[in-house]
Amino acid sequence: MSEVGLKIYTLCKKIFPINRSITGDGVRETLNILKKEIPSLLIHEVRTGTKCFDWNIPQEWNIDDGYILNPSGNKIVNFRENNLHVMGYSIPVDQNIKLSDLNKHLYSIPEMPDAIPYVTSYYKENWGFCITHNQRKKLVDGIYRVKINSQLTDGKLTYAELLIPGETNQEVFLSTYICHPSMGNNETSGPALVTFLAKYLINLKNRRYSYRIIFVPETIGSILYLSKNFESMKNNIIAGFNVTCVGDNNDYSFLPSRSGNSLSDKVAKHVLKHATDSYSLYSFLERGSDERQYCSPLVDLPIASIMRTKYGEYDEYHTSLDDLNFISEEGLNGAYQVYIKALDAIENNNVYIANNKCEPQLGKRGLYPNTSLKTTKDIVRNMMNILAFCDGRTDLISIAEIINVPIWDLYEIISSLMDNDIVSIHNT
Amino acid sequence: MSEVGLKIYTLCKKIFPINRSITGDGVRETLNILKKEIPSLLIHEVRTGTKCFDWNIPQEWNIDDGYILNPSGNKIVNFRENNLHVMGYSIPVDQNIKLSDLNKHLYSIPEMPDAIPYVTSYYKENWGFCITHNQRKKLVDGIYRVKINSQLTDGKLTYAELLIPGETNQEVFLSTYICHPSMGNNETSGPALVTFLAKYLINLKNRRYSYRIIFVPETIGSILYLSKNFESMKNNIIAGFNVTCVGDNNDYSFLPSRSGNSLSDKVAKHVLKHATDSYSLYSFLERGSDERQYCSPLVDLPIASIMRTKYGEYDEYHTSLDDLNFISEEGLNGAYQVYIKALDAIENNNVYIANNKCEPQLGKRGLYPNTSLKTTKDIVRNMMNILAFCDGRTDLISIAEIINVPIWDLYEIISSLMDNDIVSIHNT
Amino acid sequence: MSEVGLKIYTLCKKIFPINRSITGDGVRETLNILKKEIPSLLIHEVRTGTKCFDWNIPQEWNIDDGYILNPSGNKIVNFRENNLHVMGYSIPVDQNIKLSDLNKHLYSIPEMPDAIPYVTSYYKENWGFCITHNQRKKLVDGIYRVKINSQLTDGKLTYAELLIPGETNQEVFLSTYICHPSMGNNETSGPALVTFLAKYLINLKNRRYSYRIIFVPETIGSILYLSKNFESMKNNIIAGFNVTCVGDNNDYSFLPSRSGNSLSDKVAKHVLKHATDSYSLYSFLERGSDERQYCSPLVDLPIASIMRTKYGEYDEYHTSLDDLNFISEEGLNGAYQVYIKALDAIENNNVYIANNKCEPQLGKRGLYPNTSLKTTKDIVRNMMNILAFCDGRTDLISIAEIINVPIWDLYEIISSLMDNDIVSIHNT
Repeated sequence: MSEVGLKIYTLCKKIFPINRSITGDGVRETLNILKKEIPSLLIHEVRTGTKCFDWNIPQEWNIDDGYILNPSGNKIVNFRENNLHVMGYSIPVDQNIKLSDLNKHLYSIPEMPDAIPYVTSYYKENWGFCITHNQRKKLVDGIYRVKINSQLTDGKLTYAELLIPGETNQEVFLSTYICHPSMGNNETSGPALVTFLAKYLINLKNRRYSYRIIFVPETIGSILYLSKNFESMKNNIIAGFNVTCVGDNNDYSFLPSRSGNSLSDKVAKHVLKHATDSYSLYSFLERGSDERQYCSPLVDLPIASIMRTKYGEYDEYHTSLDDLNFISEEGLNGAYQVYIKALDAIENNNVYIANNKCEPQLGKRGLYPNTSLKTTKDIVRNMMNILAFCDGRTDLISIAEIINVPIWDLYEIISSLMDNDIVSIHNT
Repeated sequence: MSEVGLKIYTLCKKIFPINRSITGDGVRETLNILKKEIPSLLIHEVRTGTKCFDWNIPQEWNIDDGYILNPSGNKIVNFRENNLHVMGYSIPVDQNIKLSDLNKHLYSIPEMPDAIPYVTSYYKENWGFCITHNQRKKLVDGIYRVKINSQLTDGKLTYAELLIPGETNQEVFLSTYICHPSMGNNETSGPALVTFLAKYLINLKNRRYSYRIIFVPETIGSILYLSKNFESMKNNIIAGFNVTCVGDNNDYSFLPSRSGNSLSDKVAKHVLKHATDSYSLYSFLERGSDERQYCSPLVDLPIASIMRTKYGEYDEYHTSLDDLNFISEEGLNGAYQVYIKALDAIENNNVYIANNKCEPQLGKRGLYPNTSLKTTKDIVRNMMNILAFCDGRTDLISIAEIINVPIWDLYEIISSLMDNDIVSIHNT
Repeated sequence: MSEVGLKIYTLCKKIFPINRSITGDGVRETLNILKKEIPSLLIHEVRTGTKCFDWNIPQEWNIDDGYILNPSGNKIVNFRENNLHVMGYSIPVDQNIKLSDLNKHLYSIPEMPDAIPYVTSYYKENWGFCITHNQRKKLVDGIYRVKINSQLTDGKLTYAELLIPGETNQEVFLSTYICHPSMGNNETSGPALVTFLAKYLINLKNRRYSYRIIFVPETIGSILYLSKNFESMKNNIIAGFNVTCVGDNNDYSFLPSRSGNSLSDKVAKHVLKHATDSYSLYSFLERGSDERQYCSPLVDLPIASIMRTKYGEYDEYHTSLDDLNFISEEGLNGAYQVYIKALDAIENNNVYIANNKCEPQLGKRGLYPNTSLKTTKDIVRNMMNILAFCDGRTDLISIAEIINVPIWDLYEIISSLMDNDIVSIHNT
C-alpha cells in the first residue's frame, strides 16, 4: 500500500524545484514530466488575449534570474536558490535603489520570521522580492541593486487534459493545478496524486464512467477550460473533485459543492466517515480554489474537494515552509486511498432491484454460511438489509448510508446476489 | 432615530383617552385623528346586521356616563375618570341594588389589587363595572345606585384602510386594531406605530410592492374586511403583519403564520435574529389576535406578528396598568425600526442571476479594495458569497440566511454588482 | 378493562400446550380453537410443493412421541412432557447411540442452564433434542437410545384468514403467526390478542375500513399469503401491523415499516407517545418477523409492529422460560388497549375542511362553555386549534401531532364541530 505513497512522493520531489506560474516554461516542464507518467495526456496551449467568459488569457511570464545585491555588493537574495524569492509575475527590473524604496517591494512575515512568503501580482504590473523576516531585519541602510530578468510577452497559457473513455458518456471529473512554484502540499501533492489516480483509472477494467482529468493553472485555467468545454461538462459530469493539499499527514478535510448534496458530497462524506478517524467539514462559504469556478451559479457542477489540511488552514501555507518535509509518503498514500475509495464508490453506485417479491430462500442457494462466526453473521445481516432496499430506486451509496456499513463491504455481497439471480441492476 | 419614537409616543398619548369599542363614536374619533396624520386614509362604515361569513355586524354601542353611588350617595366609581370602569357593551342600567346583587356585576382582580380589569360582553347582553380589588374590599353592605347611560342601537361599524400603490399589484399587508379603550400597549401602540409605518411607505421611492394597511376592530373588523376583500387579498398579498403590543421596552416576540414558512416568517425571523439581542419565538398555537382570521384555514394568508411583549404575557395586559407609563419612546422606536427593516427586506428581496459563467474579474472593475482592512475583506467575502448564489432561483433573504449576514448589509453590495453589470434581477 | 386481559390470557393458556410448527396437526388444532372464538374465520390448506415466489411449501411434519433413554434405560428426555424437547422438523429416528455421537444432536444453553432452547431445522434434514444445560452436564458415558416418532410427508400447510368488510374497500391488515410450540410471549400472545382485536372489529359499527386478518406460520406463511393475494393487498391495504410478543408486562417496543413514515408508523408512534410511559424505538434494520416479507422491496406494504418486549430482546426468548408466567393479564391488556387506540385512530383519521372562512362564531352555537374550568378551557383551545388545521389537506392524526394532544381527545370535539355544521369531512 505505502508503495504508491512512495511513488507519489518521488514524483512530488521531481516537480518540486520547477518555477511554475499561471503561464510559462515551468508549466510546460511540469506537464512534460507528467506526460512521461501518462503518455495519453494531451497538452494544450491557448494564446494571450483569448477571451474566456469575463476574463482574458494574460501575457506569458518567464524568468531567468533575480537577485538583490546589498550595499557591499554581496548577493543576499537569489531566485536561483529559491524561486519564491521573486514575486510571481514581477516585471523586469534592473536598478539601484535605497533601502527605504526597496522596502516597498519586499514581502516578509513578522510572525513567521524563518519563512519566505509566496506572493504574486498577476493582473497589476509590479515587481517584488519575498524574504524571511529575519533576513529583512538585518538589512542596513544604503544603496541596493535589484535585478529581475523576467519577460512578460504575448505567448500562451499551457494546460493538460486526459480523457479516459468508459462504457457510458457520463463523466467523473478530476481537476488539479500546476501554477505554484516550489511548495509541497500546495501544490506538488495535487498533480502528483492525480497522476497516480489517472494510472489507476486507466488500468481499471470495465469502466462504467468516462473520466475527464485536467491539470490547469488555478482560476484562469479552470475558467479557460470551462469556457471551452462547458456544454459537454454540464451534460456529462455526474461527480468530481478538485484535488489539492493532499500530501500532509494530518486530519482530512472536506469542502462540499455548492448544493452540498451532490453525488460527490454524498460519496466523499461516506468515505471520510468510514475510512478516517475524523475529518473537518468545511462550509462551501469557505471555498478558495477551483470549485469557485466549477460551482459558480451558472456553471454549478457537482464538484467537491477532499483534502488533508485545507489550504489556508496550516501555518506553512503559501510559504517556503510548505516544502518536501511538510508532505510525506504516508500523507500522500492516505489521501490516495481515500480518493480511490471514493472513485470506486462512484463506479459501483448502481441501483438494484430484487428479482422476486419477498425474501429469497437463501438456504437452497447455500448463501447461509454454515459457520456462525460474528463476521459471517454480519454478512448475512448486511445481505438481508441490502436486499431490503433493492427496490429499483435506492442507489448503493444510499443503502450503505441507511445500513451504516462502508460501501466497500457491500461489493462482494452484491456480487454474490447478482451471481445468484437474486437482484439485478436497475439504473435509470 | 429616537425622534420617531417620540412622535409615535405623542400620537399614543393623543388617542389614549378615547373610549373605543368595536363600534361607536370612540372609533370614529380615533380614526379622524389618524386621518390628520395620513390624509389619504379612507374611513368606511358598515351597517349593523351586515352578514360577514359566519358573523353579523353587531349593534353600535355608545356610552355617555356610568357610575356607582355608595349607600352614602358618594360617587365611588366613575366612567368619566377611567373608561375601563364600565364593562364594554354594557346595556343601559339605572337602579338601586343591594351589595350582594351588585357583586355579580363587579369585576376585579384579587392578585392585582390596584388594577382595574378590562372586561367586555359583546355578544351577550349584560352590564358591569370594573374596579380595583382594593376598592372592592372596602364596599360595605347597603343599597347602591348604579347608572350606565349607554345606547345599543342599529348603527354602523367603522374602520379605515389605506392603499399605497407600487410598481406591481402584489401587496404587503399591515393590520392593526382600534377597539380597546384607554390602554397603552394593547392598544394605542399598534395604530400609532402603523400610522408612522404608513408615512414611511408613502414617502418610499420606487415602491416595488403595493401596501394595504387597515385599522379595524379586532376579530369582527378583520372578519368583515376579509369578507369584503378576500379575493384581491388572496391574489395579491405576499406578506404581512398584524401589528399589536409594540410599545413596551422589553424583549421582542414573534408569532408565526399558520405554515410558519411564509415570506413574512422568513423575513421577521431574519430581522429579529440580527437586529435584536434575543426574542421569544411563540407557536402559531399561541395566536390570539387577528391572525386567527388571516390564517384561518380557508383564508390562509401569510400574516405573522412581530411584537415587543406578546398580549397575555405581561401582568398589566388588559388592565388599567397597561397605561402610558408601560409604553415608551424607546420601546416604540425599537419596534418601528424592526418593522422598517422587515418591510425594507421584503421590498429588496429580489432574485438575482449572474451575467457570466464563473467568477467575474473584480480587479479590472476596481471592486477589489486596495486597503485590506477587516471590513473591506468582509465586503469582498460577502460579495463573492452573494455572487455564488445569484443563480436565478435563490432570493436575497435566503442568501442572507445562507451566508449568515443581515440582509441590510447586502443592499450596497448588490447595488455595486448591478452597477458593474455583474448580476441582474431575475424575479419570476 | 382488565376483563379482556383475562380473556386473552385464558385463550393463551388454551393454545399453549399444543405442539405447533409451520405445518401439521398442531396448527389445525390451534386454528380450530380460534374459530370457536371467531366463527367467520376461514381455514385454508395448501399442498406441499406449491410454489410461492422463490419458495415451495415444505412437507408436512407431525410428531407423536420422542424421548431419550439413558444407559440405565430411564427416560430422561420426553417430548410428551415438553414439546420443546424435540427439534422442530426432526426426521424419525430410532437407534442406540454413544454419548459422544448423541452430543452432536443435543442443544442446550450454557448461559441459561435451566432453559430448554427452541430449535428447528425446517429446510435441512436433521434430528435433535433440546435439553437444559444442567441436565446435559449430568449425562454419563454409555449407550443411549433415541426415539423420535415423527412423519415428514407430502401434505398441507394450514392457515386462516378473516375478512371483515367496511364501507370502503380500503383495508387495515393484521397478521400474526401460529407456528411455535409451547411458548407464551412468542407466540401464544400474538394469535390470542389478534383474536380479541378481531372480535372488537366485528362489533365495530359503521366500519369505514375493511379488515384483513391472518393467522399464518411465520415466513413461509406470509410469503404464501402474499403470493396468493398480492394484488388486492397492494391495492387496498392502507395500514397494518404484524402482531407478536404482546403478552409480557414490560415496556413497549416499536418496529417501523421500511419507509418509516407510513400511516401505520405515524399512528403507532402517536399512540405509544401518548398512551405509554416510554417505549423502545427500533430501526427497520432490526426487523425479524413477517414484516421482512410485507416490507420486502417489491411488496412494500405499510406494515409495522407494536410489541411489548421485542423478540430477541429478552433472555427467555425462544426457550422454555418464555412460558405462561412470562406473560400476564396486565401485559396482554395493555397491548390490547394500545392496538385498539391505534385501530380507532386509523378509523377516525379523516381530513376535515372548515365550512366558512374565518373562525366561526362559537357563542351563538353555545360552544363556548359557561364554566371556565381548566378542562373546558382546554377543550375550547383544542377546538380552535383543530379548526385552524381543518384545511382540506391535514388529516386528524397530523392535527393531533401538531397540537400535541392524543387523537382520542379530539373525537368528541370533531363530532361537535360536525354536528354544528362548522366542519365537513373532506377525504380525497
